[in-house]
Amino acid sequence: MKELKGACIIGQSGGPTAVINASVLGAIQTALNCPQITRVLGAAHGITGVLNQQLYDMGMEDPVELELLKFTPSSALGTCRYKMKDPEVDPTDYEKILECFKKFDVRYFFYNGGNDSMDTCNKISKFMQKSGYECRVMGIPKTIDNDLFGTDHCPGYASAAKYIATSCMEVKHDACCYDTGMVTIIEVMGRHAGWLTAAAALASYAGAGPDLIYLPEVDFDMDNFLNDVERVYNATNKCMVVVSEGIHDKNGNFISQAKTNGNDGFGHAQLGGLANKLAEVVRERITSAKVRAIEPSLLQRCATHLASTTDAMEAYLAGKTAVTAAVNGDTDKMVAFERNNLYGQYVCNTKLLPLESVANFERKVPREWINAAGNGIEMAFIDYALPLIQGDTGMKTVQALPRFARLRKVLAKPCCEA
Amino acid sequence: MKELKGACIIGQSGGPTAVINASVLGAIQTALNCPQITRVLGAAHGITGVLNQQLYDMGMEDPVELELLKFTPSSALGTCRYKMKDPEVDPTDYEKILECFKKFDVRYFFYNGGNDSMDTCNKISKFMQKSGYECRVMGIPKTIDNDLFGTDHCPGYASAAKYIATSCMEVKHDACCYDTGMVTIIEVMGRHAGWLTAAAALASYAGAGPDLIYLPEVDFDMDNFLNDVERVYNATNKCMVVVSEGIHDKNGNFISQAKTNGNDGFGHAQLGGLANKLAEVVRERITSAKVRAIEPSLLQRCATHLASTTDAMEAYLAGKTAVTAAVNGDTDKMVAFERNNLYGQYVCNTKLLPLESVANFERKVPREWINAAGNGIEMAFIDYALPLIQGDTGMKTVQALPRFARLRKVLAKPCCEA
Repeated sequence: MKELKGACIIGQSGGPTAVINASVLGAIQTALNCPQITRVLGAAHGITGVLNQQLYDMGMEDPVELELLKFTPSSALGTCRYKMKDPEVDPTDYEKILECFKKFDVRYFFYNGGNDSMDTCNKISKFMQKSGYECRVMGIPKTIDNDLFGTDHCPGYASAAKYIATSCMEVKHDACCYDTGMVTIIEVMGRHAGWLTAAAALASYAGAGPDLIYLPEVDFDMDNFLNDVERVYNATNKCMVVVSEGIHDKNGNFISQAKTNGNDGFGHAQLGGLANKLAEVVRERITSAKVRAIEPSLLQRCATHLASTTDAMEAYLAGKTAVTAAVNGDTDKMVAFERNNLYGQYVCNTKLLPLESVANFERKVPREWINAAGNGIEMAFIDYALPLIQGDTGMKTVQALPRFARLRKVLAKPCCEA
Repeated sequence: MKELKGACIIGQSGGPTAVINASVLGAIQTALNCPQITRVLGAAHGITGVLNQQLYDMGMEDPVELELLKFTPSSALGTCRYKMKDPEVDPTDYEKILECFKKFDVRYFFYNGGNDSMDTCNKISKFMQKSGYECRVMGIPKTIDNDLFGTDHCPGYASAAKYIATSCMEVKHDACCYDTGMVTIIEVMGRHAGWLTAAAALASYAGAGPDLIYLPEVDFDMDNFLNDVERVYNATNKCMVVVSEGIHDKNGNFISQAKTNGNDGFGHAQLGGLANKLAEVVRERITSAKVRAIEPSLLQRCATHLASTTDAMEAYLAGKTAVTAAVNGDTDKMVAFERNNLYGQYVCNTKLLPLESVANFERKVPREWINAAGNGIEMAFIDYALPLIQGDTGMKTVQALPRFARLRKVLAKPCCEA
């Protein structure tokens, strides 16, 4: 494989996670040590930073601050939800990106994101190939949704799962301590895949979790739901429910359309308010119960204080692998995880998947991991998820409060005019 | 002081905290080691357990499980919101309590709760004195609201404060990572006192916190609020606001009356939904911003995974002190904290206050700890709160998930018929 010398760009896209910066750190530290990579650039707010030529010179950062990225939540470089047009229809953006690549002598492009970001990454990769501009393009996965295709799991998922499991255990204790009837409904993120909602089953496994769990993988029926809640409530005077924001009826209509007037850049419905909606319905049915709706909202995706170190290390590995593979000649791929079992111990290895095979496919929770009634989770899921959440957070604290990375973000100058 | 021999009852009341069980543990372990205390009883769901003679024999518990109470959230014995009538108007409940005390030979009564619970505790104490039944009654403070009178701070507050500060730091990172305009409004518990809301200022102190904070200690003016938000937003394209659920206008009307149709046993308005209400108002004013409302709800009061060990140790000390003081002859008192400074180090000592002086008074955040504009917190508060949140949680985990105490809860038999 021919050696390719030039700058690299690392960008982050889509919703952040508790450990997405660990991936960026893995990529940056590896790239800074690669003689083939002449300059390490961070895109301000993902692909929009490339379009606007807003690139940070990561070599100017304090290495001690960089190291803190491993346990700093959110997207340290900034993120975006920018939908790239089909280059056949409108190549403007792609031409701008090519112009930026030429101006900064960029020969490596790493994009850290979920489904939509892998689509962006794939389109850019194909455009560069077509243009004859030599540039190696690699996707680095992340998503709390855990729905990327072809990988055993996604960086970011396990930490969010651990947050949901731990919080459900705590809320279960709180919601059961009164002598009065109480129904608690918790709404968890996840549009089309119920991986994160299923994590609530870890709480039940550990002895204090929800009585009922509903994922978008199974059509939601309001009558069945109310009967389920009533049955549990009548037996115990309490009922705790965890539901995915993306549950929908058999026609595919979201149960909560409460906030569908707003939408994100990709035209997805903005969900939310579901827990409140279900709480209202339950209040009408079970008049003796106090019904409480809880929506952890952003808290669930940025809780680095509960990050799984397994997750953070794997996120780092994904970033590192992307850079190493690209320098060694790979391109047009996404880093993925493969689970292996070594003497009964969980081991995570990386592999590379063609970007095309990943982009725009969503991986769902297998139907057989959900119980027949569609209101609970089977042990197979626990076996899957438990190894991923292991390891206490490595988040640094000062005076008992988080000490997150503070980047200088020095804008890089072009090395030549395109 | 005459030695008093007999059983003790320990009860928990009102909303739970992350460390209320540490107080119960302090009381139980101390009482189990007191030769004067013949039996240690736990009241099922606070005073209602006494009224119904539902008492657990705490001597039957596994000491290893008991020890786990130090970092088990919620009220392990169960709690209640039962408002005792004035004994002059209706002594029925008090007579029932006296009957229970006689039946179980109870000579010590410890009640672990907030303002309303200290009122209950005070009324019982006075009734027993009037009845000539010798029984020593002690209040053990707890409340995330930190509003108990006469004490420097309350057990349970610091852990909730640490949760709010940490979560605000994480959300701040998340809410600022997009390149689009964003306003984030977080609603924190606290009816009349803004102590917990003020804890969000710790996040700002640590480098990533809200731009604006509103406490119920200052009358809330919607126009001023909107002007504040708009000013910050115009300057930075972002604005993060933390607001107490109990903010009210100059006439004392709560800004959110969204859920006032339900109410708790004490006739307090059930607040909530405020963040959503403010978000709607902001959306109308700043049309370019994405506005997000976050209500951490129960999560903020049960987050033992972020408990301050200082808080847990002090909660334990409060329970222990109540028992020791009662055995030594004290009665009709609440344990309180006094802050001292030893060679520049924070030291917490206990003192005893007459129950009467505590019951039904609410301690507010001093006006001078809030800035002149009423939308931010002064450094004096940081100096006050910072020592309280120190020390990582001692929560035990198994397979990376919390291992909370599991009590047997064996019902105690009366030792004699009344």
